[in-house]
Amino acid sequence: MAQDPWLLTPGPLTTSLSVKQSMLHDWGSRDSEFIRINGEMRSRLVQLIHGEGSFTTVPMQGSGTFAVEAMLATFVRPKDKLLILINGAYGKRMAKICDYAKRAYSVLEWAEDQPVNPQQVADALAKDKAITHVAVVHCETTSGVLNPIVEVGAVVAQAGRRLLIDSMSAFGALPVDSREIAFDAVAASSNKCIEGVPGLGFVLCREAALKECKGNAHALVLDLYDQWQVIEKTQQYRFTPPIHCIVAFNQALTEHAQEGGVSGRGGRYRANCKILIDGMRTLGFETLLPDHLQAPIIVTFHMPADPKFDFQRFYDKLRDRNYVIYPGKLTVADSFRIGCIGRLSDTEMKGAIAAVKAVLAEMGVKSGAPRKLAASAE
Amino acid sequence: MAQDPWLLTPGPLTTSLSVKQSMLHDWGSRDSEFIRINGEMRSRLVQLIHGEGSFTTVPMQGSGTFAVEAMLATFVRPKDKLLILINGAYGKRMAKICDYAKRAYSVLEWAEDQPVNPQQVADALAKDKAITHVAVVHCETTSGVLNPIVEVGAVVAQAGRRLLIDSMSAFGALPVDSREIAFDAVAASSNKCIEGVPGLGFVLCREAALKECKGNAHALVLDLYDQWQVIEKTQQYRFTPPIHCIVAFNQALTEHAQEGGVSGRGGRYRANCKILIDGMRTLGFETLLPDHLQAPIIVTFHMPADPKFDFQRFYDKLRDRNYVIYPGKLTVADSFRIGCIGRLSDTEMKGAIAAVKAVLAEMGVKSGAPRKLAASAE
Ligand SMILES: Cc1ncc(COP(=O)(O)O)c(C=O)c1O
Ligand SMILES: Cc1ncc(COP(=O)(O)O)c(C=O)c1O
Repeated sequence: MAQDPWLLTPGPLTTSLSVKQSMLHDWGSRDSEFIRINGEMRSRLVQLIHGEGSFTTVPMQGSGTFAVEAMLATFVRPKDKLLILINGAYGKRMAKICDYAKRAYSVLEWAEDQPVNPQQVADALAKDKAITHVAVVHCETTSGVLNPIVEVGAVVAQAGRRLLIDSMSAFGALPVDSREIAFDAVAASSNKCIEGVPGLGFVLCREAALKECKGNAHALVLDLYDQWQVIEKTQQYRFTPPIHCIVAFNQALTEHAQEGGVSGRGGRYRANCKILIDGMRTLGFETLLPDHLQAPIIVTFHMPADPKFDFQRFYDKLRDRNYVIYPGKLTVADSFRIGCIGRLSDTEMKGAIAAVKAVLAEMGVKSGAPRKLAASAE
Repeated sequence: MAQDPWLLTPGPLTTSLSVKQSMLHDWGSRDSEFIRINGEMRSRLVQLIHGEGSFTTVPMQGSGTFAVEAMLATFVRPKDKLLILINGAYGKRMAKICDYAKRAYSVLEWAEDQPVNPQQVADALAKDKAITHVAVVHCETTSGVLNPIVEVGAVVAQAGRRLLIDSMSAFGALPVDSREIAFDAVAASSNKCIEGVPGLGFVLCREAALKECKGNAHALVLDLYDQWQVIEKTQQYRFTPPIHCIVAFNQALTEHAQEGGVSGRGGRYRANCKILIDGMRTLGFETLLPDHLQAPIIVTFHMPADPKFDFQRFYDKLRDRNYVIYPGKLTVADSFRIGCIGRLSDTEMKGAIAAVKAVLAEMGVKSGAPRKLAASAE
C-alpha cells in the first residue's frame, strides 16, 4: 500500500493504521460490544477534563459544527443572551448559528492575530446584565492563536455567568480542566487532536446544567438533552450512530492514553510545532503570530514576497512529495497554514521542511520572507 | 478474523469487506481524489432516481434523521403547511421534527399494519387548501409495510401540492423514479440498501425547487440550500465531511451497480425475504402483514404463544449462533422483526432459519404460532 499523503492540515488528519483497521467490522447498534465501546468512549472523554461525577459526554452525529450548534441551542434558552468572543472564523460561525436558532447575542471582536482579552470581557459583562452566557473558541484555528480560556473562565464565573467553549482543534492536546475552569459545556470532535476519523462531534456537559435544558433546542437531531436522556436510559442512540467512526474513536482514545494523555499528546505537537516554525524561519518565512500567542496546533505563515512564489504551485509540488498543507483563512493578511497535529512526528515534520526547501529551490524562490508591512496593510 | 455476526436488522447492516477496506486510508478534504469520489457519489445517486439534469444530491453529515429534518425544514417554509402521512414511528418522527422547527402541519393516520391510502390523501388535500406539502414514508420500517408512493405522488400532483419522501429503508432496493413520481425531495442514508457504513444522510432535491429554499432552514448545519451552494461552488463541504464513510459509500455504490442497480439489489432482497417468510411460516410463525403489503426490507412476526418462548433468550441464542435480529417497534401487537437487507444472500437467510429452528428446539418451543386474536386485541 503506497503511503497516504501526510496531512499537515486542521483536519481531517492523518490517523494511525490501527485506528483505521478497527473499522473492519460490522456491529449492530444493540451489540453488547459496541455498547461497551460507546460507554468507554464517553467516560474516557469525561476523564480528560477531570469531570468524573459532574460531567457527561453527549455524542453528536455529524461534524464538529453540529456539536457546537447543538451546544449553543441546547444551553442558551430563547430568553437568554449570549456574548460571543470573536477573533476568527469559528467565533463568527457561532454568531451565524445564533441567527439561525434565533438566540439573542452580542459580540466582542478582536483582530485575527490577537487573543481575546479577559478584561474586556469582564467590562462587557458588567455593562450588559442581560447576558447570561459567554462563548469562546479555545484555539482559533483561523490563525492558530491560543485564547486564554482559564482567564476568560475566571471573569465569567466572577460575573456569575455561564461559559460555553468550542475546543474543537485543541481538545486532547491542550488542557481543559473542569476543576480549574467553570464551564457548562465544551464541544469538540473525533478527528482533531484525539486522532480519530471524522463523523462524530461531542459535547461534554455539566450534568446539573444540562438537566435544566429540556425543550430548549431548535432542532430534534441537535437536542443534546434528549440525546443524553435516551442514551442514559437505553444505552442506545436515538438515531443510527456512526458505529465504525465511534469504534475508531475509542481506539484513538486508547492510543491517546498510551501516549500519556493530554500532556503526552500536547508534548508531541509542541515538538512538531517547534520543528516546523524553526525550519520555516530558517527558510525566511515569517509566522503571523509571536510565539507566546501560538497554539501548537496550526501555524499561519505570511506569503513570501518573491514574485517567483506561486501558492498553488507550491501547494501542488508539496502534495507531489506527499505533504498536504492548507490555504489561509485570514481576512487581514495573505497567508497559508501548516498544521502540526495528527499522527505526525519529528520525522514527518523534518520531511515537510526538507520538502518546502526543495520546492522553493525548484521554483527559484530564494527566501520565504514576506513583504515588509504588506501583511498588516492588506 | 472471526466472522462478524450477520445483522438481520434495519441498520446498521452487514457490509462487504471491500466496502470496509476502502476506509483504510486518510484523505484531506481538498484531496483531488476525494473530490472526485464525492462527485461520483453525488451523480450516481441522481442516476438512481433517473433525475439527471433536474435533481441534485445534497449530502448531510449525520444519520438518516438528520437528512429528513434538513429536508422538511429546508423545503417547508415557516408560512407553509405540511400534511404528514403516518402509519408508524417514522411518520410520527416527522411530526416531532415539525414541532421543533415550528412548521405548521396536520396528520393523516393509519394503523401500523395498513398502508397509507391515496384516496384519503386526495380528500384531505381537497378539504384543506392551506396544505402546501405532503410527506410520506416509503417503506415504514416500524412494520415493514410498503406505502404506495406512486399513487400518493399522483394525487399530490393532481392537487398541485409538493411531495417529500422519506425513502430511508427502501432507497436503492425499491424504485423511486423521478420520471414517474413528481416530488421535490427524497431523503435516505448511506447504510441501508446501498450497504455503506453509517455516517451520512443525503437528500435528492429537485433543483428548481431547492433554488427557492434560501433562508428557510431552522439550523445552520441542516440548511440544505447552503450546503448545496457551497458544494457546487467550491466542491468542498461547509463542515468536515465524514470522509471514510463517503469513500465507503461510493465503493458500496460501485458494488450496487455491479449487482444490477435497483432491480438487482431489490431482486436479492426479495429472494432473501421469501426464504425468510417461507422458512418462518414452516416453523409456525405468522407475519404481521399479508404478502401484498410486505416490502422486501424487514418482516414483522407475531410473538409465539408457547409459554416456553422468551424473546430475550431467543434473541441471545440466535446471537450466539451469529444471527442478530431486532425487537419489535409496534404499538398494536407484541412482535419482533427480522431484516433481509445488507450483504446477506440465500446462504445467510437459510442459515438464519436453521438457527431459529434449532433455538426453538433448545427452548422446548413446539411452534412459532401466535395466540389467535391476541395480536389485534392488545
Ligand atoms: C475551532 C473550531 N471550531 C469548529 C470547527 C468545525 O468543525 P467541523 O469542520 O468538524 O464542523 C473547527 C474545524 O476546524 C475548528 O477548528
Ligand atoms: C423509514 C425510516 N426513516 C428514518 C430512519 C432514521 O434513520 P437514522 O436512524 O439513520 O437516523 C429510519 C431508520 O431505520 C427509517 O427506517
